[in-house]
Amino acid sequence: VFEVKWDAIAAEKGGYAHFMLKEIHEQPRAFKDTLTGRLNLEKHEVKLDDIKITRNELEKIEKIFIVACGTAYHAGVVGKYIIEKLCKIPVEVDIASEFRYREPMMDENTLVIIISQSGETADTLAALREAKNKGSRVIAITNVVGSSVAREADDVLYTWAGPEIAVASTKAYSTQLIALTLIALRFAKELGTISHELFDEVAVELKKLPEKADLLLTKEEEIKKLAERYSQVEHLFYIGRGLDYAVALEGALKLKEISYIHAEAYAAGELKHGTLALIVNGTPVIALATQEHLFEKTLSNIKEVKAREAVVIGFAKEGNEEIKKSVDHVFYIPKTHPMLMPILTVIPLQLFAYHAAVARGTDVDKPRNLAKSVTVE
Amino acid sequence: VFEVKWDAIAAEKGGYAHFMLKEIHEQPRAFKDTLTGRLNLEKHEVKLDDIKITRNELEKIEKIFIVACGTAYHAGVVGKYIIEKLCKIPVEVDIASEFRYREPMMDENTLVIIISQSGETADTLAALREAKNKGSRVIAITNVVGSSVAREADDVLYTWAGPEIAVASTKAYSTQLIALTLIALRFAKELGTISHELFDEVAVELKKLPEKADLLLTKEEEIKKLAERYSQVEHLFYIGRGLDYAVALEGALKLKEISYIHAEAYAAGELKHGTLALIVNGTPVIALATQEHLFEKTLSNIKEVKAREAVVIGFAKEGNEEIKKSVDHVFYIPKTHPMLMPILTVIPLQLFAYHAAVARGTDVDKPRNLAKSVTVE
Repeated sequence: VFEVKWDAIAAEKGGYAHFMLKEIHEQPRAFKDTLTGRLNLEKHEVKLDDIKITRNELEKIEKIFIVACGTAYHAGVVGKYIIEKLCKIPVEVDIASEFRYREPMMDENTLVIIISQSGETADTLAALREAKNKGSRVIAITNVVGSSVAREADDVLYTWAGPEIAVASTKAYSTQLIALTLIALRFAKELGTISHELFDEVAVELKKLPEKADLLLTKEEEIKKLAERYSQVEHLFYIGRGLDYAVALEGALKLKEISYIHAEAYAAGELKHGTLALIVNGTPVIALATQEHLFEKTLSNIKEVKAREAVVIGFAKEGNEEIKKSVDHVFYIPKTHPMLMPILTVIPLQLFAYHAAVARGTDVDKPRNLAKSVTVE
Repeated sequence: VFEVKWDAIAAEKGGYAHFMLKEIHEQPRAFKDTLTGRLNLEKHEVKLDDIKITRNELEKIEKIFIVACGTAYHAGVVGKYIIEKLCKIPVEVDIASEFRYREPMMDENTLVIIISQSGETADTLAALREAKNKGSRVIAITNVVGSSVAREADDVLYTWAGPEIAVASTKAYSTQLIALTLIALRFAKELGTISHELFDEVAVELKKLPEKADLLLTKEEEIKKLAERYSQVEHLFYIGRGLDYAVALEGALKLKEISYIHAEAYAAGELKHGTLALIVNGTPVIALATQEHLFEKTLSNIKEVKAREAVVIGFAKEGNEEIKKSVDHVFYIPKTHPMLMPILTVIPLQLFAYHAAVARGTDVDKPRNLAKSVTVE
């Protein structure tokens, strides 16, 4: 069993101006810790000690629910995509405060994946109990050993992010994405729904994430300048398709919770159905266009907002020259497997939110009105 | 077969300042037309001529997708709730521009319900074709006889809303909700998943919707005053739980598209996970609290935003006195079956958006950047 130790010193700011910035920078280390001992490239295997569900049990699963709140819910939106793609099991992702009151159809053939950094989120914990009452198996993804969800779930997968102090979650989110990917790989392998080639491709790329995250962090100055430049706006839109839309949701939430800019994320194809009315000369739009197979479609949405004179900051995969012609600024993300792009893309979005908040002079680590863990309803 | 005729005259403003206002006021008539000939209370039956799917075929359906864009997508969010409750078939609702590119798992045991007012929405039509390619049965809900989706779907249910000219959809949305309810009742009856009592209860209340909508429209002045009072704000939040959350999405979209106020809807339980940071002294919050079984929970969210000095406009069921103590204004919705509340609740939200837009002097019927039917991607 691999164990990560942390102590009081690790929970201090260690030279960073804020816990949030420190935690953003800890991501390469957190990625490595969350992966260590779990991926065996030689055997093409994923080893998750506390996920004991057997192949036999897995074959009976007809439906997966991912249930969480806030940032963890956004991780679930990515997780749905990856699990459906790799395991061919339908996945529904739901907000815990909605899920628990809507009498969702669950039974012993349902698997429920609960995500909570603290493991104490009230609505999420209630959803877990509801699922168990209905006879469904529950897997918890959490960052806190011995937390309520870890104790009450049938299976647990820990993110080894280390203590997260800032209210706005960063390294917990990205390691939740890694955890979901590991679960998807393990299930897909046992169900026989993934080829050796695809398994290896994703696994190899997972192992490279720490160094790519490191590389991204060296470009902090670039994103800081952009954040400062647009830090005084009142509104900001994030657009994307597919997995880029999922990350857009998290990018918008980050900005909203610490800078108090009213940020909102849209599935890029939905713009024409209403939100385009809000785009005027100078409205900043962050356009995520890292998914190759959706690039042309996203580009056409970028052109739509440019036609209304929006200022567009594009996020694209390293080497994409075409986007330059249609955006005001471009920020490049290192290449990886498309499914893993969100894990890297979120890093500059976290930095953007952080530097915009600092420029606005807000209390970054303790934004107004918010608490770290929502342990009441 | 019941048929509704409309001509050039019906498509003129008939004394109203805008098509949108006229169309809002046409809802009692549109409800009646959409219901006429379809509900047989004596036989406890729903008769939908162009939905030919048999009981046998229905019993094989394991999963329903509802696919649409914009306002029609919001109708789908309500539809998911009603169909799952009444028919016990899992329903997934998806944005057409996302659905068509994410390779959703569909086969001959999947039913796809497509919703499009015009019947020509490009992404929705593409989703329909994708579903048919996969061997899934497709039901279209549309307002335009002979439109592309009507022609290409296996089954059709027309909303008899009459021509909708204003870009912002109103009567199309509310009649789509009626159409979805009719489908749910018909399926539930055949599948035996609904009791006679519940069937009759919902059916009787459906029949009463036109007069209740009429009653609501007599309270226009009340909502107009509220809209004018808050028309100059930059941000406005809509909150609700369950079906109230679904209507909140539509209320926010209406305001956004015609008044250009940045409105955003939230599942009330999610506030504490981020958005609460945007709520300050004077921020207007529209709180929908029409669902009795969720009322206490929603009330506690109302108190949270009040504690941050938000101005709260509450929408509650006639007779709810308790809400008065916690909100700045309250607007009452006539009592009906909880499942049908969205059909009534949306009416004052449409009027709120309309009067806010008029007060801001925008081009209500033709908001900037938007087209009535999005026939390109």
